[in-house]
Amino acid sequence: MRTNVVRAKVQWGETDAAGIVFYPNYFHWFDNAAHAFFRALGLPLADLMKQGIFTPILSAGSDFKAPLKYDDDITITSAITEVRNKSFRIEHTVRCGDVITGAGWEWRGWVIKESGQLRAVAIPDDVRCTMMGTQRS
Amino acid sequence: MRTNVVRAKVQWGETDAAGIVFYPNYFHWFDNAAHAFFRALGLPLADLMKQGIFTPILSAGSDFKAPLKYDDDITITSAITEVRNKSFRIEHTVRCGDVITGAGWEWRGWVIKESGQLRAVAIPDDVRCTMMGTQRS
Amino acid sequence: MRTNVVRAKVQWGETDAAGIVFYPNYFHWFDNAAHAFFRALGLPLADLMKQGIFTPILSAGSDFKAPLKYDDDITITSAITEVRNKSFRIEHTVRCGDVITGAGWEWRGWVIKESGQLRAVAIPDDVRCTMMGTQRS
Amino acid sequence: MRTNVVRAKVQWGETDAAGIVFYPNYFHWFDNAAHAFFRALGLPLADLMKQGIFTPILSAGSDFKAPLKYDDDITITSAITEVRNKSFRIEHTVRCGDVITGAGWEWRGWVIKESGQLRAVAIPDDVRCTMMGTQRS
Repeated sequence: MRTNVVRAKVQWGETDAAGIVFYPNYFHWFDNAAHAFFRALGLPLADLMKQGIFTPILSAGSDFKAPLKYDDDITITSAITEVRNKSFRIEHTVRCGDVITGAGWEWRGWVIKESGQLRAVAIPDDVRCTMMGTQRS
Repeated sequence: MRTNVVRAKVQWGETDAAGIVFYPNYFHWFDNAAHAFFRALGLPLADLMKQGIFTPILSAGSDFKAPLKYDDDITITSAITEVRNKSFRIEHTVRCGDVITGAGWEWRGWVIKESGQLRAVAIPDDVRCTMMGTQRS
Repeated sequence: MRTNVVRAKVQWGETDAAGIVFYPNYFHWFDNAAHAFFRALGLPLADLMKQGIFTPILSAGSDFKAPLKYDDDITITSAITEVRNKSFRIEHTVRCGDVITGAGWEWRGWVIKESGQLRAVAIPDDVRCTMMGTQRS
Repeated sequence: MRTNVVRAKVQWGETDAAGIVFYPNYFHWFDNAAHAFFRALGLPLADLMKQGIFTPILSAGSDFKAPLKYDDDITITSAITEVRNKSFRIEHTVRCGDVITGAGWEWRGWVIKESGQLRAVAIPDDVRCTMMGTQRS
């Protein structure tokens, strides 16, 4: 399974008055990490979008296990854990040192825009193989 | 079951380059709606925090069913659907007209801060009754 | 001079670990207030954009005079204070009770999108009059 | 004069429905760049805050000269350009390639928190020298 790691530092503006990260920021990180993952796969979403391919969010969620503070160094490890016909699941784990502070997922569709209309289509085989980190026979 | 409705308009800054709402904004709305819900219950979180009571997020997630655009008028309907000993679940449904565009939830803890330490404690009976919209016998 | 007032409550997610509003949120409020101002003028930016008219930001700034906390009730009062040939200045004053907590401005252009190209154009006379709250002779 | 450069990529969530960066994000970048600048000076704000020293924003502003799009690689170059008795000015220039897309500033105070009260105090000489990149005689 292919994974990708993004390193970041908790920014001042990502905290709230309780002195810890405001939780919606995790989903900002997840979205950024998903984009970074596709760049690492050699399938930048910017290129896909130029071809009319979009990966809209279908659902997302996260467990929050430990608080993060300003200036904490974090890693976000992403992996595609399931690929269905027209959608895929990407999981994101946020760590500060060895501590998992949050673990979440995104389900995203595979959609083509033609004549201004969006239509879910099957994920092409080569993309599927690249996503899963397997060789196409 | 007590519900609370927040009305809002999709702001320009909540959209992304696909012309629709960037999904992490749903969680910003959910957090705002949770705070509004407690205000409507007569238990403002601002007051609880002054007493050292916090409701930290344990998990959150959402399905996204239809895109929202700039200037769309939305409602966010919130309800507490489960109250456990030291945590509760609040569900949020986002509608534009009659269309449900997203439906999500938050699990939140009930935590007291004493001598700088956070400790999960049982939700008091009167709060539990107020949350569930039932009478305490 | 036409003014418009937006009422809001400081949201939990708008604070930072110092317990006060994180300053970039003022510019989110200013942008929202500018959109509300044009709605109040009877010139919703959503309608203008459908006609290919955009009001891109040229510069923005603010003084910050007093901190704002979670749950504070605020007003944002907006007024267009100068209209040039192809741009205008809108000023925004944020108050909590009688206290001005921040006072800022935006300079925005008047731009038309034709064949995918953006071009600054003269603000039409009727729009100029509406902006200034004067009658066109 | 000491400068510090932060490299970043425009994130999907930083764009708006016009397909370009939503301008308040510049101020998020400026704040992040100010924190990075102090880290580079060997005066991390995280450490200063532990000593009760804060650098609250007094005013901020920016010119916006060219649009930025999703996935653009940018640099944010920061420099402290003026140090007064109890405040300082930090300027931030955002470039995409050779193009300056925005140029702004922050005025920040130097404040000490004692017994829960904030009080502006003179910037210590050694900090002043470090800020200006000069040697203290």
